[in-house]
Amino acid sequence: MTGWVRVVGLGAGKDEWLTPEAHRVLHDATDIIGYFPYVNAVAATATATRHASDNGVEVDRAAQALHMAAEGSRVAVVSGGDAGVFGMASALFEAVENGEPAWRELDIGVIAGVSAMLAAAARIGAPLGHDFCVMSLSDYLKPWPVIETRLRKASEGDFVLAIYNPASKTRTEQLQSALELLRNMRGKDTIVMLAHSIGRAEERVVITTLGECNPADVTMKTLLIIGSSMTRRIERAGKDAFVYTPRYYKEAL
Amino acid sequence: MTGWVRVVGLGAGKDEWLTPEAHRVLHDATDIIGYFPYVNAVAATATATRHASDNGVEVDRAAQALHMAAEGSRVAVVSGGDAGVFGMASALFEAVENGEPAWRELDIGVIAGVSAMLAAAARIGAPLGHDFCVMSLSDYLKPWPVIETRLRKASEGDFVLAIYNPASKTRTEQLQSALELLRNMRGKDTIVMLAHSIGRAEERVVITTLGECNPADVTMKTLLIIGSSMTRRIERAGKDAFVYTPRYYKEAL
Repeated sequence: MTGWVRVVGLGAGKDEWLTPEAHRVLHDATDIIGYFPYVNAVAATATATRHASDNGVEVDRAAQALHMAAEGSRVAVVSGGDAGVFGMASALFEAVENGEPAWRELDIGVIAGVSAMLAAAARIGAPLGHDFCVMSLSDYLKPWPVIETRLRKASEGDFVLAIYNPASKTRTEQLQSALELLRNMRGKDTIVMLAHSIGRAEERVVITTLGECNPADVTMKTLLIIGSSMTRRIERAGKDAFVYTPRYYKEAL
Repeated sequence: MTGWVRVVGLGAGKDEWLTPEAHRVLHDATDIIGYFPYVNAVAATATATRHASDNGVEVDRAAQALHMAAEGSRVAVVSGGDAGVFGMASALFEAVENGEPAWRELDIGVIAGVSAMLAAAARIGAPLGHDFCVMSLSDYLKPWPVIETRLRKASEGDFVLAIYNPASKTRTEQLQSALELLRNMRGKDTIVMLAHSIGRAEERVVITTLGECNPADVTMKTLLIIGSSMTRRIERAGKDAFVYTPRYYKEAL
């Protein structure tokens, strides 16, 4: 049996962010499995059989990959950005833990990638240049009170916040509540960054503040970054401002 | 004037983690500046002049890069992992903000990379598969009480914690204090991961618990990951266990 599963982060959109390791694995695979936009994003030079599925079936997809590997296939499960950050890696291990005992002995690995938050931060300057929290605002798999508690604790710790899944077509109230909570805990001048479709042709960054941020500007393709009290903006004539969080912290919280 | 500065993340050690974008920039540069192990890590095929310096001179190094770019050089400032996460990017923007006004108008950019935490997480399983905090334990640039507050808030929010700079040859007390604080706030069975020299030949992972973690095992080459209450371990016969944090969260905090 020479089958394997690799959960592969494709990087955050741009071809130049696909690592050589990920490229090699995609070209060694016999099968590529994933959410259809990611499967479609794999270069045509990868000759594997493609199995695209819709959103929301992550554990089924993981089980399919494990079944195929157990039968000898070399399966790449693809994710956008880094597979370990709100990607397919956790779903795969969930399937391993709860699935057939033999699956634990399979050759399984995760291939790191450039995550959306790192790509967005690089595009903006260095907003994640000091201590930060990363969280998903989706209450699809965790209760809303847990999200509220975490937003509150991250604010009490004056962490920079990188927020995945801030909204979707049908889920917009959570963002309103989150922004209200953050406005009550952090200054209205706190810098807010909306990074839309980073690494794609339609890439766009909006730099605003908690006081002025318009929730209607946030979509499912937005990564939202909330600055700490130390995060700074460098204005430039006729160009986008840079935003960075200094490496130092001036006083005790 | 055609000079520029790019702050380039080299990825976390392994050549296969250097993105094609970073590779292109290193080969277009006339000059490569950075901490000497990172400058030495750039492939010999990059023909730029190399300017290696020691640790602790980040802002001087950034100013040097900006001076050279202002005079027409194409300067790559190199960092390990991702330059935006406890790397050179923040130091560069600090130099831009406080330096010569003309520097703001230079062509400056950051090239994202595979950060140490993503590489370590991929090697271990998917410990960062749900909400997490990232922080440096070094009190070289921030007061210790800020670090304590952040460790406490991250624990109250039951975030997974990725800890950079947990110790150095001369700085070991901070780790002792941090582990004591974490043991008082999180269960002794909380999973702890020590990822040593990830992506290098001497790479080594230790999976232990808060109760059993030995601070003497942590060096300046260790990335420390502390699980949340949900983080799980999957045992395997004769192989390293996998550790992952599920995408779901069962109850309110």
